[in-house]
Amino acid sequence: MTAWQYENKLGCMHAAFPGSFDPPTLGHLDVIKRSAAIFDNVTVIIAENRQKKYLFSTEERVELLSTLVCPWKNVSTALCRGLIADFLKKKGINLLLRGVRGGDFSYEYELSLMNKSLNPDIETLFLTTNPEYLAIRSSTIKELISFGGDVSAMVPPVVEMALKKKLGHL
Amino acid sequence: MTAWQYENKLGCMHAAFPGSFDPPTLGHLDVIKRSAAIFDNVTVIIAENRQKKYLFSTEERVELLSTLVCPWKNVSTALCRGLIADFLKKKGINLLLRGVRGGDFSYEYELSLMNKSLNPDIETLFLTTNPEYLAIRSSTIKELISFGGDVSAMVPPVVEMALKKKLGHL
Amino acid sequence: MTAWQYENKLGCMHAAFPGSFDPPTLGHLDVIKRSAAIFDNVTVIIAENRQKKYLFSTEERVELLSTLVCPWKNVSTALCRGLIADFLKKKGINLLLRGVRGGDFSYEYELSLMNKSLNPDIETLFLTTNPEYLAIRSSTIKELISFGGDVSAMVPPVVEMALKKKLGHL
Amino acid sequence: MTAWQYENKLGCMHAAFPGSFDPPTLGHLDVIKRSAAIFDNVTVIIAENRQKKYLFSTEERVELLSTLVCPWKNVSTALCRGLIADFLKKKGINLLLRGVRGGDFSYEYELSLMNKSLNPDIETLFLTTNPEYLAIRSSTIKELISFGGDVSAMVPPVVEMALKKKLGHL
Amino acid sequence: MTAWQYENKLGCMHAAFPGSFDPPTLGHLDVIKRSAAIFDNVTVIIAENRQKKYLFSTEERVELLSTLVCPWKNVSTALCRGLIADFLKKKGINLLLRGVRGGDFSYEYELSLMNKSLNPDIETLFLTTNPEYLAIRSSTIKELISFGGDVSAMVPPVVEMALKKKLGHL
Amino acid sequence: MTAWQYENKLGCMHAAFPGSFDPPTLGHLDVIKRSAAIFDNVTVIIAENRQKKYLFSTEERVELLSTLVCPWKNVSTALCRGLIADFLKKKGINLLLRGVRGGDFSYEYELSLMNKSLNPDIETLFLTTNPEYLAIRSSTIKELISFGGDVSAMVPPVVEMALKKKLGHL
Repeated sequence: MTAWQYENKLGCMHAAFPGSFDPPTLGHLDVIKRSAAIFDNVTVIIAENRQKKYLFSTEERVELLSTLVCPWKNVSTALCRGLIADFLKKKGINLLLRGVRGGDFSYEYELSLMNKSLNPDIETLFLTTNPEYLAIRSSTIKELISFGGDVSAMVPPVVEMALKKKLGHL
Repeated sequence: MTAWQYENKLGCMHAAFPGSFDPPTLGHLDVIKRSAAIFDNVTVIIAENRQKKYLFSTEERVELLSTLVCPWKNVSTALCRGLIADFLKKKGINLLLRGVRGGDFSYEYELSLMNKSLNPDIETLFLTTNPEYLAIRSSTIKELISFGGDVSAMVPPVVEMALKKKLGHL
Repeated sequence: MTAWQYENKLGCMHAAFPGSFDPPTLGHLDVIKRSAAIFDNVTVIIAENRQKKYLFSTEERVELLSTLVCPWKNVSTALCRGLIADFLKKKGINLLLRGVRGGDFSYEYELSLMNKSLNPDIETLFLTTNPEYLAIRSSTIKELISFGGDVSAMVPPVVEMALKKKLGHL
Repeated sequence: MTAWQYENKLGCMHAAFPGSFDPPTLGHLDVIKRSAAIFDNVTVIIAENRQKKYLFSTEERVELLSTLVCPWKNVSTALCRGLIADFLKKKGINLLLRGVRGGDFSYEYELSLMNKSLNPDIETLFLTTNPEYLAIRSSTIKELISFGGDVSAMVPPVVEMALKKKLGHL
Repeated sequence: MTAWQYENKLGCMHAAFPGSFDPPTLGHLDVIKRSAAIFDNVTVIIAENRQKKYLFSTEERVELLSTLVCPWKNVSTALCRGLIADFLKKKGINLLLRGVRGGDFSYEYELSLMNKSLNPDIETLFLTTNPEYLAIRSSTIKELISFGGDVSAMVPPVVEMALKKKLGHL
Repeated sequence: MTAWQYENKLGCMHAAFPGSFDPPTLGHLDVIKRSAAIFDNVTVIIAENRQKKYLFSTEERVELLSTLVCPWKNVSTALCRGLIADFLKKKGINLLLRGVRGGDFSYEYELSLMNKSLNPDIETLFLTTNPEYLAIRSSTIKELISFGGDVSAMVPPVVEMALKKKLGHL
């Protein structure tokens, strides 16, 4: 289909926000909050990759996210054990959301091309990370925890509790 | 407002796609086409900066874009002589669209932060440029034209005609 | 001189922070404030490049900076009409300060190599820009002003006054 | 604290240069040499992360560094088993040194923000890598060694000896 | 040797294209095809790193590549168990080919400097990846396969067959 | 043509190295020297863009380059007033050489795609800049000169002479 063929918008806007969320951070929550204000429906997809080791089990991550998104009526959660592109096709979702920072964008660009090649209906939309969350990454949080660092300013209260429980401090 | 305060989506989704469009390219048209399929309404904003020199006058650029977006019922055009952030406030539009390629994303990131600081309601959403349009930039087209290069594969037919007319080849 | 030859520190630490400061921003002031707390002396160098057009004259920029750095006893200002590398040699200053953001660092890297090749005693030290000032650049401020935008959140009060005066709003 | 609040420099300048140093390279030594000429005191911090595998044990790395920094009177070494940010707080050191090359700076930027969020007194200062050491990384050296490559041009003589001993060539 | 000393070209042009090729992709094949049209001889070097885990064994990768390059009279394959720089010296090959995409080029730059420092005769030449293959990486293919994804559009038919066999689908 | 269609190399290798060369630098000369050792023939193309202002006239730049490449039997110069892609087609040259540094590669990537779209026979090959020339750019040299800086370490002797003459120091 060439660029000057025309289609008009159909149906309501349903967007998916996929991630490992191991653990969910204030940065994730900020993207969810802003997405909830933009789209009709947002599904937060907790991805499970059997080759990765997680701090929180799949069940724990689904539960944490479900608690966190509870206050938004138009946000729900889902678990995806296979390819995101396949999952979106099954669910009829065409919008994929990613949070991005400054710096080299090439990885995100290639990922969006790959998802489009697997499922041509998928559009990836990027939101920027709020500068106050620039230094917050799930991987950083896990590394800080391994050194006994305080991550309470980086995660929502419910995740802080879960982290303390997980680490035997409660 | 902290990250765990809640808002739900309100109203229909109206997005703006600002640019100089001097001239509009197949890459611009691809972003417009894809945006039209995502959002309820899309306004293509032709920006006028009096300190810049343009190949096509403001009127010509507005006319070209109006012709190009004509087939989409949910796409319109508008002229902006001041700040985009102010224009969006007046029009009640909260979504700003930008097409991005791979590479360093810092300029786009800073621009989105600046727009948010000028108007906190603005969310910038980024769509990726289709790889087949990676090498197409308005500035490139103007440089090619200055050397007598053939740009017919880079612009829609109506722009090709306008270019020929502008350059006295018709 | 090879890497395993030894020199010990000599004298007090005098650092220079060069720039156009057209106009000085809150980001500049933040770098100055933090530098003043690190180094024995800091000289803010207002660079004059005759091939560049400035919003504020050299005299105005020197005056603005002098007012701004007044409260720090260890910060002074100087005007440089030639090469920064030569200026530092004359003044016996060996440290050059630059504020950097995320993104591609290559330009800054090459600039530091060039300065070292012109004057091997110069060490460039980079401080990071505070995230809250990420979107603030002098060039952005001038562009915003040309569109009538409000830049009061981007500059110190004395610069805001000077801008209003310059633009005839006072 | 806003940007126009004032503090003056207090006390002597003590900077820390943290790393794994597995093994120390000519690039590290170059940064140490240049830092020793800038700051009153430099502490080279050998970081131990129990989740990482090292070629040289913590004790070996501390010993190598101690030997290497011996000729500088103002450089010492220290071992850090926890968070660098906490270690600096205990020692009363506020300056963190990092060597940087050209390319994407985002990782370093985020790291500096994270350290500042953990300990607001920390300033990270970046020095550039000398171009002649651009291709020298500890990870590269270990990979070259695993293929039997000659790394004698990349490390100080004492490290070359230690590598030969470690690999059973002595 | 300074820049204004002179050497003229000697002998025929023999270039090497090294990689893991686990598995070979359409992107690899595109680089091979284009290199075969440029250079007198091209040797595709299958690198074996005992510390890496591969999907296809060294023998399988050599066999796949040998089949794939068969139609080009001037392309051959070779297995390299040690350093590429040493291998090229033994074979008398001075040109190293790499396919590159947009984005941060620093890793490739450092790699080329390292190879030149190990063997000053080596010149690295970079070809760009065709945009239609931008999202194709061997690592991506393996990840897609682990989720049951369809990679038939990313690899040559003979590799698709080998993948199906490997995964027990034949 | 798909990736598995086969072509074998035809004819001798003739490469072009285009640039403004205003003025030619030691970095340019290094790329020319290395190219002369790789390819059968190298044509240094002096590009003329009537919209750009040059320090040296087209004739002066052609003369400087002709003098500089004189010692290599397989290097010649040519003047190009139009598009490089068209020029190469006329001359039957298919290889375009570019020198690249680390950092963001996107501009070069897009340029190579544009040239291929204008003339599908063109392959762009990238050589890396020698680290000792990392800070040398023609634009930097001109800026240094405007401040009276010494650029004798950045250009070949014949260019230094020409610069002195141009600036009235001879």
